Amino acid sequence: MSDGKDSLDLSGLGAAIPNSNGLDPKVRKRVEKLREIQGQHDELEAKFFEERAALEAKYQKLYEPLYSKRYEIVNGVIEVEAESAGETPAEQKSGEEKGVPAFWLNAMKNHEILAEEIQERDEEALKYLKDIKWYRISEPKGFKLEFHFDTNPFFKNSVLTKTYHMIDEDEPILEKAIGTDIEWYAGKCLTQKVLKKKPRKGSKNTKPITKTEDCDSFFNFFSPPQVPDDEEEIDEDTAEQLQNQMEQDYDIGSTIRDKIIPHAVSWFTGEAAQDDDFEGLIDGDEDDYEEDEDEDDEDEESEDDHDTKKTKGAAGGDGQQGERPAECKQQ
Amino acid sequence: MSDGKDSLDLSGLGAAIPNSNGLDPKVRKRVEKLREIQGQHDELEAKFFEERAALEAKYQKLYEPLYSKRYEIVNGVIEVEAESAGETPAEQKSGEEKGVPAFWLNAMKNHEILAEEIQERDEEALKYLKDIKWYRISEPKGFKLEFHFDTNPFFKNSVLTKTYHMIDEDEPILEKAIGTDIEWYAGKCLTQKVLKKKPRKGSKNTKPITKTEDCDSFFNFFSPPQVPDDEEEIDEDTAEQLQNQMEQDYDIGSTIRDKIIPHAVSWFTGEAAQDDDFEGLIDGDEDDYEEDEDEDDEDEESEDDHDTKKTKGAAGGDGQQGERPAECKQQ
Repeated sequence: MSDGKDSLDLSGLGAAIPNSNGLDPKVRKRVEKLREIQGQHDELEAKFFEERAALEAKYQKLYEPLYSKRYEIVNGVIEVEAESAGETPAEQKSGEEKGVPAFWLNAMKNHEILAEEIQERDEEALKYLKDIKWYRISEPKGFKLEFHFDTNPFFKNSVLTKTYHMIDEDEPILEKAIGTDIEWYAGKCLTQKVLKKKPRKGSKNTKPITKTEDCDSFFNFFSPPQVPDDEEEIDEDTAEQLQNQMEQDYDIGSTIRDKIIPHAVSWFTGEAAQDDDFEGLIDGDEDDYEEDEDEDDEDEESEDDHDTKKTKGAAGGDGQQGERPAECKQQ
Repeated sequence: MSDGKDSLDLSGLGAAIPNSNGLDPKVRKRVEKLREIQGQHDELEAKFFEERAALEAKYQKLYEPLYSKRYEIVNGVIEVEAESAGETPAEQKSGEEKGVPAFWLNAMKNHEILAEEIQERDEEALKYLKDIKWYRISEPKGFKLEFHFDTNPFFKNSVLTKTYHMIDEDEPILEKAIGTDIEWYAGKCLTQKVLKKKPRKGSKNTKPITKTEDCDSFFNFFSPPQVPDDEEEIDEDTAEQLQNQMEQDYDIGSTIRDKIIPHAVSWFTGEAAQDDDFEGLIDGDEDDYEEDEDEDDEDEESEDDHDTKKTKGAAGGDGQQGERPAECKQQ
């Protein structure tokens, strides 16, 4: 973050005012003074962004021991005592369930957006998920998700990560997303299906022909859409498709960061989904909540002037800062 | 904001765990402990939201004197001294331009989203705009925009307001928007066009027939889309259209709040538009910015599975909190 000197220089009386041709000299003088005031504002605003980031970091630190305890209980590192509700190091009896089985799988499956990503084939592998964590990154700005897995028969990696590089922290415009290459064990890859075809009659080849085909899987999350180096090479339809894919990919990542990680227990029990909006309840906003049975009926966005405009504006950095646009609730 | 007791009660050991049928009693005990930990987290989180709101309020207060000075210069309440760059109460010479003429009109016209809303017919009226302010409101949550107008020949009101009621502050789901009824002077209404037709030949009526018709105007912003009381009455297409209109309406409002009000001078001079993203520059992020000539080519969102899902999720309160979703930058 700059010390604000840049913005002061920018608004100094000596700098030329763009679009000032034809301004009356008196008006021009006033605009120069206004730019000085704007510079003072922008210095303050930079401090606000700094303080807000520090506040978030402070709370992330306060959440940390709670997340650790959650990890220990979920994975059976400690045992909750029946009578005193205290904890002791877990002594595993053979055949007994350890911790809370399939905790993260079930937490994610209770969230609408993530439920659509998780295929039946994925579930067995996702039961090995021990923890999900996230961190802000600063160079470039963005955040990183870490999926910690127990030793499992599907892939070799113990941690799968997904990193989002943003154009700017306060107006999150996604630059690119990067995922871990999953080292699948032979025949265990969940993002591809192997199709076996019998060879044609009369063919010299008597072995079945195998063909692999990409398929739906939660683990495709670790192979995010790639933006080609040369943007000019892609046609309009491809660009539009890519934009949609990247938005969907960011939706999944930010849901895991903002919903699943902080409220995993409430998602596991289903309370978060029941509440429609969990934060609201904590804030004592119960009155604001209504169950809208009809919400799912018709929510597609159509190709209309608005969408064009909105996306244009955002691509040009004109979206609002620090807050996502409202989705409209019909009641 | 609650004192957190609600969320503690909710997570108490005595409360029933939803979806807990079939849980092994030992696992159930662990989940009960996890809910207690979640309750502690949620108490902390409520404090975080409180502190973040206080931080924002603190800075809004710090910006206030700068906005006042801006107001005084823009409207010629004080005069900027040529030599000392100080200010004195403005002494208006007849025929001389006062303050910075058409300041807010030009600031808004330099923003892509707002430029599309402002019709040529609107410009004369928008020159009377003296100030735009915003405030958070708490019951219900949301924010209010105030447009302060000088005495003008178009309408009687001196202040036009637009209020957004949100379902929740941290997951801004728009509930409804309310605008001031504009008291147009006769024949001055900018949101309607009067069409005059000559009466048919031979008709008894010899006066021209006048017909009023709604037309595009920035001032339609004060007549936001209305959500019908009974949601079930509207069909799918209408619901979709309404959703889009509300999103567009919120886009305009949040652009004015987050872009125009804090950086009006930079929008007036065109610097904000040039910078692609103004906050980024202040934060010293110049390196992150590229001019993307191709961005406007193909930004329509198509009706595809993703859009359906995304909107569904958001309507169900499942969007990410406190940050808007990324728009994807292709490079």
